[in-house]
Amino acid sequence: MFHLFYVIDRPFTIYSDSGSDAYYESGPFLYDSNLEAWSLNMLFPYMIRRVTAMVELNGDERLDYLLAENLRIIQSPSVFSFSLDAVLLSRFVNVPIQKGKIVDLCSGNGVIPLLLSTRTKGTITGVEIQERLYDMAQRSMDYNGVTSQIEMIHGDIKEIPKQIGYSKYDVVTCNPPYFPTPSIEEINKNEHFAIARHEIMCNLEDVMRVSSQLLRQGGKAAFVHRPGRLMDILHFMRMYRIEPKRLQFVYPKSSKEANTILIEGIKDGNPDLKILPPLVVYNDQNEYNPEIRRILYGEE
Amino acid sequence: MFHLFYVIDRPFTIYSDSGSDAYYESGPFLYDSNLEAWSLNMLFPYMIRRVTAMVELNGDERLDYLLAENLRIIQSPSVFSFSLDAVLLSRFVNVPIQKGKIVDLCSGNGVIPLLLSTRTKGTITGVEIQERLYDMAQRSMDYNGVTSQIEMIHGDIKEIPKQIGYSKYDVVTCNPPYFPTPSIEEINKNEHFAIARHEIMCNLEDVMRVSSQLLRQGGKAAFVHRPGRLMDILHFMRMYRIEPKRLQFVYPKSSKEANTILIEGIKDGNPDLKILPPLVVYNDQNEYNPEIRRILYGEE
Repeated sequence: MFHLFYVIDRPFTIYSDSGSDAYYESGPFLYDSNLEAWSLNMLFPYMIRRVTAMVELNGDERLDYLLAENLRIIQSPSVFSFSLDAVLLSRFVNVPIQKGKIVDLCSGNGVIPLLLSTRTKGTITGVEIQERLYDMAQRSMDYNGVTSQIEMIHGDIKEIPKQIGYSKYDVVTCNPPYFPTPSIEEINKNEHFAIARHEIMCNLEDVMRVSSQLLRQGGKAAFVHRPGRLMDILHFMRMYRIEPKRLQFVYPKSSKEANTILIEGIKDGNPDLKILPPLVVYNDQNEYNPEIRRILYGEE
Repeated sequence: MFHLFYVIDRPFTIYSDSGSDAYYESGPFLYDSNLEAWSLNMLFPYMIRRVTAMVELNGDERLDYLLAENLRIIQSPSVFSFSLDAVLLSRFVNVPIQKGKIVDLCSGNGVIPLLLSTRTKGTITGVEIQERLYDMAQRSMDYNGVTSQIEMIHGDIKEIPKQIGYSKYDVVTCNPPYFPTPSIEEINKNEHFAIARHEIMCNLEDVMRVSSQLLRQGGKAAFVHRPGRLMDILHFMRMYRIEPKRLQFVYPKSSKEANTILIEGIKDGNPDLKILPPLVVYNDQNEYNPEIRRILYGEE
């Protein structure tokens, strides 16, 4: 019997029941036109290996693929899902390859530490204030077998230098909350989203001050944010002695205003700011441009 | 006899002798394949009209076309020639169409006032400290018949608010010297270039302070500069109450770092910075991209 397989390259979700634990799978499956069915057996070989591992998923959590990296990450549409911004920051920041100490602040479900672990043999500490997200991150690290490289800490970034040490780190990354304090209604509606997206638990100045406290002289800090906050970011970076060195603008299309900025500075570095080549996400046909496909899917 | 005409779309220079005054012409001519010669008689009709006007050219000065605008401008390779940066700034800045008062600081040979005169009916004041350049600019204004709209002033920008008035202007533009103070050798080699390119007569802080002094509340200032000075520009703009509102990066190619920035601020404006779509000068075949062709040549 001839089986025609289709590769689906957009994430989607199917439901499967493996004994007592119900769990979701999403990612690029193969579709068998003769069986007219999706099947876990039709996963790519490396995915089958991953799927055989055990992971406990709570509520509406899903085990999603980090497509380019052969990693899996626990997400939840009602609590936290990582964005393209976090992926872009993980690729943008300069990291030491062989060794070094890295901290990721406001880590969420740990997507940045996970992605960084594919680029460095250094140790990575992720800090997340929301216990629910910290717990998801910790289970993702267990699942991917990276707990010897990545340590997740449940805590407030403002207290973290006291806890893990001043001026000891080579790299700090942060995808911070983008928006000012929300209304009470927004907080009541979904506290998890409110804390991840709004400056409730920490603001931009906290992020910059703590980053500077953690960094050794010459260490690097990299951030992703919205262009509307560029003035504040540059202001606070200079105030806390993180001299901006590399700035990249992300444009949704070549004819659109930038909607994301990536910036890296060096603690006590000399002033010399470079504006990196533009990163344009979609072409005129609304398809990802080659560079974005490479980042997301690992395509050459 | 059949005449085959070629349109040459790149500026070049030919020499012509019109009686006692030798002068240069450069711009898009037609080439006659039968005559195998360039001739002023083969200029486009509007160019013939221009060429019939009188202009005195000194030394190695040339009368160049501002291609998209049907204007002519006096240039000199040994003293001053305008750059793409000045043209881009003239297109970037927001100007009132029907009326208004505009000042262009560090005007050089007056290219920005000339180009702005095609976008506004407001009055334009150009300020240039070098008498030689001021004189070239003044003769270009005479030649183009725009002296009722454009006034050139020979003076130091630092003294100009005292002379023409504080807080009266709607728009200030400036394509300032880009580089720090040069060596004595550089100054001795060519003082005209040294003053136009280096912060000898005025520095970035002077430009920002004077711009702010000239602007009415809500008035706009626009500048073109190098990315390496972005931090300083933003710093001085805020210091002198010109809140950055529009920032555009110019990339020589889509894979290259930006080499030029265009920035506009509003005096006492609210913080809200937009990053405009990227301006990429050349495509992968080293040809001007359509937007640049439109700006330089007026092509649709």
